[in-house]
Amino acid sequence: MLNLEVFKQRIFSKEKMRKVNLFETSNFFCDLYCLVPGQSQKPHKHDEADKIYYVLEGEAIIQVGKEEQVCSAGQMVLAPAGEEHGVRNGGRGNLTLLVIMAPNPNVRKTS
Amino acid sequence: MLNLEVFKQRIFSKEKMRKVNLFETSNFFCDLYCLVPGQSQKPHKHDEADKIYYVLEGEAIIQVGKEEQVCSAGQMVLAPAGEEHGVRNGGRGNLTLLVIMAPNPNVRKTS
Repeated sequence: MLNLEVFKQRIFSKEKMRKVNLFETSNFFCDLYCLVPGQSQKPHKHDEADKIYYVLEGEAIIQVGKEEQVCSAGQMVLAPAGEEHGVRNGGRGNLTLLVIMAPNPNVRKTS
Repeated sequence: MLNLEVFKQRIFSKEKMRKVNLFETSNFFCDLYCLVPGQSQKPHKHDEADKIYYVLEGEAIIQVGKEEQVCSAGQMVLAPAGEEHGVRNGGRGNLTLLVIMAPNPNVRKTS
């Protein structure tokens, strides 16, 4: 049984937002998104998959649809399938988000 | 956009472990499991769905397959589809887990 210390998996890079995969199955992925101040993931959407953002540290400006909200550690937001969504680090410190997406768009089920 | 303060959603009960749903779609559910000392969810399995446990507070004894591990705040474990899994509060304080399961066994897809 793999037992991950989630916070220790963080990787930050000045070049771009880093995604660190924690777990992945055919049904979902669970990543860390790690953003230094000013970094962002541009708004985009997935036709089939729902995404959850859970802020572990820092200050996230999260967009879902046409709405933007500032979210800090301990807050969770749902970006439903078909809705445009994105996130940027609006704070002065590092931003770390736990991101779960289901189904996993990277995997094509064989069954 | 619903922006949840996750920790504030906790509910504990002396009668039984409480599950608090945070978000649910046809693709997954995201719950809080709230256990006072001694409470547990008996080992069980799901043929299709994968489950993630993420410990928010307290001390969880998590079983996956035949293995048991003690997990504390910040640790994450995967219980893959088909594997027996369960959790109990092995500590002296309250235990709160973030639990994500995909696909959502409570929902039958219409598409």
